Amino acid sequence: MSMIVNRRDLDFMLYETLGMDELLKSPRYSDYDRSAIDAVFDLAQSIAEDKFLSCASKGDAEEPAFVDGAAVLIPEIKHAVDAFREAGLSTTVYDTDIGGMQVPTMVDQALKGMFACANTAVFNYLFLSQGVANMLNACGSEALKIRYLPNLVAGHWLGTMCLSETQAGSSLADIRTKAEPLADGSFKLTGTKMWISCGDHQISDNIIHMVLAKIPGSPPGVKGISLFLVPKNRLTDEGEIGEDNNIVLAGLNHKMGQRATINCLLNFGEGGDSIGYLVGDENCGLANMFNMMNEARLSVGMAAVMCGLGGYLYSLDYARNRPQGRRLVDRDPTSPMVMISQHADVKRMLMTQKAFVEGAQMLVYYCARLIDQQKLAADQEQQQRIELLLDLLTPIAKSWPSEFCLEANKLAIQVLGGYGYTRDYPVERLYRDNRLNHIHEGTLGIQAIDLLGRKVRIKEGMALQILRQEMQTTLAEASAIPELASYAEQLEAALAEVGCTVKAVDMADNPELGLANATLFLHATGHVVIAWMWLMQALAALRGRSDGAAADADFYRGKLAAVAFFYGYELPKALADLRLVARLDSTCYDLTDEQFIGV
Amino acid sequence: MSMIVNRRDLDFMLYETLGMDELLKSPRYSDYDRSAIDAVFDLAQSIAEDKFLSCASKGDAEEPAFVDGAAVLIPEIKHAVDAFREAGLSTTVYDTDIGGMQVPTMVDQALKGMFACANTAVFNYLFLSQGVANMLNACGSEALKIRYLPNLVAGHWLGTMCLSETQAGSSLADIRTKAEPLADGSFKLTGTKMWISCGDHQISDNIIHMVLAKIPGSPPGVKGISLFLVPKNRLTDEGEIGEDNNIVLAGLNHKMGQRATINCLLNFGEGGDSIGYLVGDENCGLANMFNMMNEARLSVGMAAVMCGLGGYLYSLDYARNRPQGRRLVDRDPTSPMVMISQHADVKRMLMTQKAFVEGAQMLVYYCARLIDQQKLAADQEQQQRIELLLDLLTPIAKSWPSEFCLEANKLAIQVLGGYGYTRDYPVERLYRDNRLNHIHEGTLGIQAIDLLGRKVRIKEGMALQILRQEMQTTLAEASAIPELASYAEQLEAALAEVGCTVKAVDMADNPELGLANATLFLHATGHVVIAWMWLMQALAALRGRSDGAAADADFYRGKLAAVAFFYGYELPKALADLRLVARLDSTCYDLTDEQFIGV
Repeated sequence: MSMIVNRRDLDFMLYETLGMDELLKSPRYSDYDRSAIDAVFDLAQSIAEDKFLSCASKGDAEEPAFVDGAAVLIPEIKHAVDAFREAGLSTTVYDTDIGGMQVPTMVDQALKGMFACANTAVFNYLFLSQGVANMLNACGSEALKIRYLPNLVAGHWLGTMCLSETQAGSSLADIRTKAEPLADGSFKLTGTKMWISCGDHQISDNIIHMVLAKIPGSPPGVKGISLFLVPKNRLTDEGEIGEDNNIVLAGLNHKMGQRATINCLLNFGEGGDSIGYLVGDENCGLANMFNMMNEARLSVGMAAVMCGLGGYLYSLDYARNRPQGRRLVDRDPTSPMVMISQHADVKRMLMTQKAFVEGAQMLVYYCARLIDQQKLAADQEQQQRIELLLDLLTPIAKSWPSEFCLEANKLAIQVLGGYGYTRDYPVERLYRDNRLNHIHEGTLGIQAIDLLGRKVRIKEGMALQILRQEMQTTLAEASAIPELASYAEQLEAALAEVGCTVKAVDMADNPELGLANATLFLHATGHVVIAWMWLMQALAALRGRSDGAAADADFYRGKLAAVAFFYGYELPKALADLRLVARLDSTCYDLTDEQFIGV
Repeated sequence: MSMIVNRRDLDFMLYETLGMDELLKSPRYSDYDRSAIDAVFDLAQSIAEDKFLSCASKGDAEEPAFVDGAAVLIPEIKHAVDAFREAGLSTTVYDTDIGGMQVPTMVDQALKGMFACANTAVFNYLFLSQGVANMLNACGSEALKIRYLPNLVAGHWLGTMCLSETQAGSSLADIRTKAEPLADGSFKLTGTKMWISCGDHQISDNIIHMVLAKIPGSPPGVKGISLFLVPKNRLTDEGEIGEDNNIVLAGLNHKMGQRATINCLLNFGEGGDSIGYLVGDENCGLANMFNMMNEARLSVGMAAVMCGLGGYLYSLDYARNRPQGRRLVDRDPTSPMVMISQHADVKRMLMTQKAFVEGAQMLVYYCARLIDQQKLAADQEQQQRIELLLDLLTPIAKSWPSEFCLEANKLAIQVLGGYGYTRDYPVERLYRDNRLNHIHEGTLGIQAIDLLGRKVRIKEGMALQILRQEMQTTLAEASAIPELASYAEQLEAALAEVGCTVKAVDMADNPELGLANATLFLHATGHVVIAWMWLMQALAALRGRSDGAAADADFYRGKLAAVAFFYGYELPKALADLRLVARLDSTCYDLTDEQFIGV
């Protein structure tokens, strides 16, 4: 049993539920058929298991060191990243016109997931670079693209995002890094950037930083932020690695988890000039960065799912092979012990993990399919429609897994008991790794305000309306099937509750109070969306049960049980929270500092 | 602001809510008045801050090492334990007849809490020893007590509990450690014990192990388990430290948190005899051990609360002093930044922590008062009544904080954002430390079955009836006050739901299915009990608001807001879970191994 992927389930989600076959019929993906995709998955799985999973524990135990001004990683990490690149996997997501393999995004997310599950800390180096390449491709000048894009696409150079500063984490309006124009059109960057993941290392030939900074004289706040490409090493005229660009590693952060991901403080323009190049227009940096942020947020959500999946697979395997105790109804102490997967509470913990992880995993692939559909859209209207839906789902796809797949990781530890609490087993590391996902790429609180304060309001609630229409297809199909009709009814009611809540918040006199419980809204709406994801899986499982191989009966039975679990145990909780948000409860909002502690 | 205790709140809980003044009037506690207790608290707080808190981070970073067959700790830990002993704090809990200070248990829990909050990993050495001394005092022979008790009480020797073995964690029926009788009435112990906290170290002159083992020929299962006192070093006839007792440290476990607590594998009878002494009667070991286990479970719950409190105090202080961003209604990027405690979502996170931590803290002291009341009981009937209630509350007092104060720790990290995820701040350590509390001294699943399978059934539901009667006093008082009447109504309804759920489970044809969702019952019943704890605090806060100093107005306002929060945001969730347990949902229970994964 693989510890990083359930291939049977991957097929179920991609083909049986999301209709990948249909997608593959489009000319855009004509290079691929199912067997070609299987081959890519086989390759990815084998590299992820052999090179990434194998050093996950060591990378955690032997944290990056600060040696002579540089960050030094265990050598296995470079070997892993090299193997990934050499197998051509760096290029899967890009279009062929820039040197990519142009696989469907669904396939790309599925194969990247294996790496995120195997070793999320090393996966970070890869996904950040992909974001840099996509942003450069979308916003950069032709000249800049010619010089920087090919090596990013091929994976020879890795990249980073430099947004936060020590005094400005979530508050980008307050960044101070300065970009002064030079005569040749380039800029001189000075300032300190904090929390830079993958900010320094020797695992690629160069590092391409995407840096937010302010050009002197630009407007205050976010309207005066521009985006710059700043390489670790400058390039020669011929495009070869040239002299050092004076970006100094000022210190490493020592984290609870994801330790093999270097995270650091970088000083730009220390001891010499750090030369950078404007990407996109002046003062449009934040909007351009969001090209990358949205992608990064989906990737963070995916990584959170994969941390959860790692814990689920490991604890399931453990529970099936660990004898301990007897059934409650067996009072004979001389009878043989049973596997702990026989104990009801262990089953409950496994089912909770399954429902959270596989539900969220489905959302990851659903969002990936939206990206694919956007690329195939017949016209601009359809494209915009998909974009709105994706905008709406992004904060959920990032945050829901960060909350509930972390909960899954907590349960994985519990299944292993004392062993799970030791560093000899991977489940505690996965729990520590996953805890980051609510913090980076926009905190949970930021995502919540993004959803309730912005996304549900765009174009008079158009995004929510599109969500409702999309869900309607599933609801109509499920309503007609007796076994699923009550789920459809429950989901419909929950969705209506989301709508009522948004209306109530819209009518708040004090918009700040309206958003005071936005985080509850985010989690609860996430529950509604995940319930939808499970209903889609229920439909597919019923189809599979009637059409499929008898050998698959257990698989479909498990899927249907997870649906029953999510609707019975989880969805009802969302309703209570939505009502709370709707009544503009001000219990927390009204409190002052002094009242919390009383002294 | 102290990072380990809110003394104002401690006074509120102990005096204003739980009526400590009344307790102090009893002859048993005639040595103490409020000023004497304040002095003990001052002493405890200063040692806890100076000696325990100061090495918490170092003890985590520099884990115990295995050197030449022994476990070696950082020296600060011995200094801390020495300071605790030298201040006489080892003796607070014991009666004067065995050399103790005989403080009320409420006071003892409150002062121990400061140490648990400051450094839970070092606190473990102290609380385990206390359990050993109490068990020896309750069950040991006079001869054994004379030789071992004084040094345990004075804190010169520390102790451990040796229950688990590698093949038998939660399943004590399957332990294999053997105790063979010797001619002089002592026993020769052989076998391996796993997960032994504080099992080897040099911070006390001797270590007294309480070991479960089987005498050859004893019945199978738990009915054949006996309890033995096995010292690390044997004593000479004069009671001095004598020769080594051949208990070999076979390995250290490397944990996610609580790292300064040595946790190890011990081999008894390796390279020579390990001599032990029967404590209590043959084959009554488990019952005798439970004298200690119940106390240990309450201590674990208390420690879980204190980990939560540490995170709450730290994140509150941080939020009040960290500028970042602006109010949502302030669109001017040139206006000064506000402290993050002004942001609605940060307030929500602080309030959630407050409601969980202070609610659970109240339960800890309520249970402590029950122990005090038991000691002062007028007759056996009253004593038994209190014992039954304490039995019922013990699994809740252990598990609820382990779940919800861990959640509080998760939020404390979130308040600090990226900083909270680094090891430069204590909040991530507290989160890691707290994760153990669902595992040791009986896992969450074991506690759940204990509550729903045993405790609510004893004497035809007598314990639950007593709980109802005790709650009734609070309910009657609150119902008469308009500001609290709706809470009283809500609590009464929730309690009724608990009763209905127990009845439904009683009627299950399959008792195993009846208990399949026992964990949900435990959490939900915990919510009902904590709601009661908050209603008690609400009554006290209203009294305080009308009688108290004007300077305290903020304090009482905060308490009443926390009540509103718990009843508005949390208690409703419990009802949904209780109904689920009542309908004997078999979604998880019915599933087989194969169905989880499908392959």
